[in-house]
Amino acid sequence: MSTPKLGIAMIGYQFMGRTHSNAWRQVAHFFDTPFEPILKVVCGRSETEVAAAAKKFGFMEHATRWQEVVTRDDIDVVDVCTPGDSHLPIVLAAVAAGKSVLCEKPLANELGEALQMLDAARKAGVIHMLCHNYRRAPAVQLAKRMIDEGILGHIHHYRGTYLQDWIVDPEFPRVWRLEKARAGSGALGDITSHSLDLARFLVGEISEVSGLLETFVKERPLEGGHGRGPVDVDDAALALLRFENGAIGTVEGTRFAPGRKNHNRFEINGSKGSLAFDLERMNELEVYEENGSESGFRTILATDPSHPFVSGWWPPGHVIGYEHTFIHTVLDFMRGIEAGQSPRPNFEDGVRNQRLLDTIERSHASRRWEKV
Amino acid sequence: MSTPKLGIAMIGYQFMGRTHSNAWRQVAHFFDTPFEPILKVVCGRSETEVAAAAKKFGFMEHATRWQEVVTRDDIDVVDVCTPGDSHLPIVLAAVAAGKSVLCEKPLANELGEALQMLDAARKAGVIHMLCHNYRRAPAVQLAKRMIDEGILGHIHHYRGTYLQDWIVDPEFPRVWRLEKARAGSGALGDITSHSLDLARFLVGEISEVSGLLETFVKERPLEGGHGRGPVDVDDAALALLRFENGAIGTVEGTRFAPGRKNHNRFEINGSKGSLAFDLERMNELEVYEENGSESGFRTILATDPSHPFVSGWWPPGHVIGYEHTFIHTVLDFMRGIEAGQSPRPNFEDGVRNQRLLDTIERSHASRRWEKV
Amino acid sequence: MSTPKLGIAMIGYQFMGRTHSNAWRQVAHFFDTPFEPILKVVCGRSETEVAAAAKKFGFMEHATRWQEVVTRDDIDVVDVCTPGDSHLPIVLAAVAAGKSVLCEKPLANELGEALQMLDAARKAGVIHMLCHNYRRAPAVQLAKRMIDEGILGHIHHYRGTYLQDWIVDPEFPRVWRLEKARAGSGALGDITSHSLDLARFLVGEISEVSGLLETFVKERPLEGGHGRGPVDVDDAALALLRFENGAIGTVEGTRFAPGRKNHNRFEINGSKGSLAFDLERMNELEVYEENGSESGFRTILATDPSHPFVSGWWPPGHVIGYEHTFIHTVLDFMRGIEAGQSPRPNFEDGVRNQRLLDTIERSHASRRWEKV
Amino acid sequence: MSTPKLGIAMIGYQFMGRTHSNAWRQVAHFFDTPFEPILKVVCGRSETEVAAAAKKFGFMEHATRWQEVVTRDDIDVVDVCTPGDSHLPIVLAAVAAGKSVLCEKPLANELGEALQMLDAARKAGVIHMLCHNYRRAPAVQLAKRMIDEGILGHIHHYRGTYLQDWIVDPEFPRVWRLEKARAGSGALGDITSHSLDLARFLVGEISEVSGLLETFVKERPLEGGHGRGPVDVDDAALALLRFENGAIGTVEGTRFAPGRKNHNRFEINGSKGSLAFDLERMNELEVYEENGSESGFRTILATDPSHPFVSGWWPPGHVIGYEHTFIHTVLDFMRGIEAGQSPRPNFEDGVRNQRLLDTIERSHASRRWEKV
Repeated sequence: MSTPKLGIAMIGYQFMGRTHSNAWRQVAHFFDTPFEPILKVVCGRSETEVAAAAKKFGFMEHATRWQEVVTRDDIDVVDVCTPGDSHLPIVLAAVAAGKSVLCEKPLANELGEALQMLDAARKAGVIHMLCHNYRRAPAVQLAKRMIDEGILGHIHHYRGTYLQDWIVDPEFPRVWRLEKARAGSGALGDITSHSLDLARFLVGEISEVSGLLETFVKERPLEGGHGRGPVDVDDAALALLRFENGAIGTVEGTRFAPGRKNHNRFEINGSKGSLAFDLERMNELEVYEENGSESGFRTILATDPSHPFVSGWWPPGHVIGYEHTFIHTVLDFMRGIEAGQSPRPNFEDGVRNQRLLDTIERSHASRRWEKV
Repeated sequence: MSTPKLGIAMIGYQFMGRTHSNAWRQVAHFFDTPFEPILKVVCGRSETEVAAAAKKFGFMEHATRWQEVVTRDDIDVVDVCTPGDSHLPIVLAAVAAGKSVLCEKPLANELGEALQMLDAARKAGVIHMLCHNYRRAPAVQLAKRMIDEGILGHIHHYRGTYLQDWIVDPEFPRVWRLEKARAGSGALGDITSHSLDLARFLVGEISEVSGLLETFVKERPLEGGHGRGPVDVDDAALALLRFENGAIGTVEGTRFAPGRKNHNRFEINGSKGSLAFDLERMNELEVYEENGSESGFRTILATDPSHPFVSGWWPPGHVIGYEHTFIHTVLDFMRGIEAGQSPRPNFEDGVRNQRLLDTIERSHASRRWEKV
Repeated sequence: MSTPKLGIAMIGYQFMGRTHSNAWRQVAHFFDTPFEPILKVVCGRSETEVAAAAKKFGFMEHATRWQEVVTRDDIDVVDVCTPGDSHLPIVLAAVAAGKSVLCEKPLANELGEALQMLDAARKAGVIHMLCHNYRRAPAVQLAKRMIDEGILGHIHHYRGTYLQDWIVDPEFPRVWRLEKARAGSGALGDITSHSLDLARFLVGEISEVSGLLETFVKERPLEGGHGRGPVDVDDAALALLRFENGAIGTVEGTRFAPGRKNHNRFEINGSKGSLAFDLERMNELEVYEENGSESGFRTILATDPSHPFVSGWWPPGHVIGYEHTFIHTVLDFMRGIEAGQSPRPNFEDGVRNQRLLDTIERSHASRRWEKV
Repeated sequence: MSTPKLGIAMIGYQFMGRTHSNAWRQVAHFFDTPFEPILKVVCGRSETEVAAAAKKFGFMEHATRWQEVVTRDDIDVVDVCTPGDSHLPIVLAAVAAGKSVLCEKPLANELGEALQMLDAARKAGVIHMLCHNYRRAPAVQLAKRMIDEGILGHIHHYRGTYLQDWIVDPEFPRVWRLEKARAGSGALGDITSHSLDLARFLVGEISEVSGLLETFVKERPLEGGHGRGPVDVDDAALALLRFENGAIGTVEGTRFAPGRKNHNRFEINGSKGSLAFDLERMNELEVYEENGSESGFRTILATDPSHPFVSGWWPPGHVIGYEHTFIHTVLDFMRGIEAGQSPRPNFEDGVRNQRLLDTIERSHASRRWEKV
């Protein structure tokens, strides 16, 4: 009768730790969930900081060694919120312990690792999911639904930009996201990857790319304050795309676009209509349906109870925010656990996304189109 | 050393119960609060429903008699989320018991009751606050800050509209919000009241009004399905305003504006600049500062850590939603309890707001300008 | 076979002289006109200035006495572009001479004069037209067409604002538009009158009003530079409206809205949909049609050949500007001459508009609702 | 004392003939021009049609043999408005006759011809200009001025899209613009070329490109109605760009974007700010200047007398349209004639633009980055 409990262990407690813990705390208050998530333990290297995080985020315990956490009997889900360079061992151990795994994007910083994780998860038969949260903004889900219903006809163009501006200042320090060893890449893996994931979600698989990476500021002050260090990741990552279904596209991610704070925008043009979305106005979807001379782009406020995920929230016109996309993600993750099926995007998508990033890097190096 | 606890009793569990309970659950996870709110008990008339609400909202207990709840020793705060016609007895009892009281707007359905509550709260020396949540959208707080800094100069014009469309269909049933006995008034108290409260918050006190009320659909199907009943509240409520400081204005609330879901918009014109806000894009503030020929309205994305309340949330460009305005409200309410001072808007504002609504009704009846 | 010629005399050569002369010069190059307009003579008091204007505007001659001009045999049309206080004698003389008359708005500065002109024009049986040019923006005509087609259902709300900012600075001089003797009124006759004319065009006749006039800056520097003089017209003119068909509305015209340069905007809400227009984006019409959960306001770019007047211009997406509204006005004026019927808006509309302005002034003075 | 006359011969009378003839007719009525343009003769192959065009456009004469026209003594300017495949002989003859030449873009359909024309014009010492009219929208000129003033700092990104939708329907016929022999290329030369010209104007010279051309509909109905013919031009033309100054960019032109009628948009991101423009709202320029936490994109309504070309037109907020860009072009062309200097863009720009188009085609074929 009562909802079964689901023991959650979260590894990592920085920015993504905040968004994921909120999702776990909130989901059952707004949706009918197959499980009641229990925030058992959050894990991090610094005892003091992780203890504070546990308190702030509402976890029952904290821990400093993920190795011990991921094998605990009272843990059903391992939620990996650390930077990409540490995903492999955590995921492999969690999978080996038979846990369901939710992993922040990117799945890994390189393709080989991603493949290893997918392989392990498949063999272990566990539920796995990748957290590309923007797929689960109601307006994006509505876009997907309208495309699937054929409202756009067949698709000719995808145009994805993800523009930010937080490192335009050359004196902004060389944080971990600007180190290849930690972050794998710069704008490419951090934000262009979102545009690519949305492209795959909404348009289809990509067959070849022509990539361009650029680092405008090649050296930055080290954190802590003494000296400067090289920036070995890209500040901006662009590509031309060809999709398997004949569509063509562009993606562009940059951290050098003053005034664009989180401008994750796409436009899709099909044979019968167009769609556009901008994360900074994430409750809106712009739609054009060709319908004679009184046609026009219309702005659907994606807050109607009939829109995906909205019935859990507020009446029409009462908007939701960024963190809600994570709540929808853990909701579908739990539904996947119940159904015994890894929800999309899962580790297979992680591998495909990583392959795309690799191909863009390869194309940048070869100065040629490269097949994915 | 540890944060003192604050026992919360919530009376009512419908729409506002959902927003308030979320606020109490969330606030300490995102802000440093002077108290740790404990969701003790939610109270409602239907045992079955309130039990379900307690579970969904995260309250420890439920109860069906508010009279017993508001006097409990373990309760520090009474949060009144019922319709306006029931506020008086609950508030008076809570105040008499020395509780801090947060009350949903409108404070009452008529001025006499509002005055009684203010009087009782003052005499009891308790902390009281009215939940006009839109004051605490970061963009609205930023507007207030910019006005106080003098960016607009002195103000000439206020233009407030609150447009919705949920009862345009004449077959929409006569719900409680369309009954004068329950709701006090229609669009006037429900939404025009927000435009008036924002006018008072941002521009100043209003001295006289010329009001216009209209009921377009005078009879509607009864809920439950047999027969029709009269609509005795307004479908739309408009007024011309004169402010004490010489500004003039208009307010218009209607539930008959197709396509406007929650279009709570204002524009303010001063001697040096202008401001505009729209709740459907609540993370944005439009600002015009006169500054030569390259001036223009600019859209500030009110998601910068320096903007009011934003530091508790996400990085720039990561938007928040409707329910966050309630979280900010309970945060300031708790700070008021700590400081021993009733935060604005409080019952005094409730009285002033109610007096405005009364004056608009009076002016509508007399077909003349009326002083507040 | 060849197009008959139409001799044009234009009285006045300031701002409106520029727009009207352009209209006469351009119309036959873009539309099939029933006549070929011949720019015979422009008339003004200053010989030097009017001579220069004739050259610049492309008139064959100039003159300084309109009395001689309006009776000339080679003149078919008298186009009155002077301020409102001089319309009466010019129009009466032109009408007496049997000329077709196009008159700039307002028809007169007071109702009595307007009635006299209408009466004279009717008795003389001449074609008369009032130049309320904004009616003939393609997007406004499209709005009219959609309303007539029933797309909005029956109308509940009209919301018209005409915001400008050119006299916010208290040191801006007391130009003629700020003198009652010349201009008749301030924002009321100059811009609120446009909102009222559009209300009548799109919604219907207005039955009663509650008006509010305000003069924020009561004294200004005299032109020429010595001393200050009183401002005896309104800086802002607002009104609540009741229409004969049961709709209600607001209009607001002000010259004190920083950043609003020519913000002639209206929104109309009907039982089935809504429309919005903003002159600063005059090639666009926003339309909402209620059509299920994927409805939204759409922006029609009113540049399709099927839209009113557009077939004379450019391909879709190639926008037109302010002056084109005058070209469309003279086009319809010529068609009216051919058809022997005074096109709307004509002097009858001028009288009705003037009556509205008078009623608003009366209501302002009486502090009551007044019937039109 | 009086303005010298300038005899204009226009070759071609289709769409561009309409825009250019309007420009010549209008320019002296709104600006102080160094010459009075006399619309002497319009030339085209069909006697009937060109006679009608002469009448409609206001030319004194018409002619069917350009060879005779371009050498006439009373002709000072040859304005070439024919499709690109016929520019070479006309321009060479006009230049040989010592005429000033204004030529529609593209200068030629292939680079060799463009070089020949530039060479001939230089040797003849005549004034030459290319009509890339969008450079002379006031908002674009304002963008240029702000960039030159350093408001953006140094530029990192250019993002140009030119989206239309007029051939999405596969049954749209194979008009001349879809024939390589006539048009040279498809979207590439017609619209992507505008994005490239604006890139060069605003950012600087481009050093290398990676191009992508696509033809979605490979066969279309022939005009006239019997049978189908191959489409041998591109439906969409995209490229990644590297600029000499270190900036990077993208351009995309397509005729397959439903709802985008004339969506010539660019965004430029520099080290200190950003700019954006959209031709469908051509009176607006969006500008972001980094200036602390209250920064935001602002919309400058480019209708202030201080903005480029605006003083010839109307008061602030009174917008202009598409055809005005041509008026500004002929104005500067005449000023160039007076000054003895070929205004930008001139044939040298035509050569550079053509070289870019060639390089994009080359890159598309080689599937590699190619240097310009």
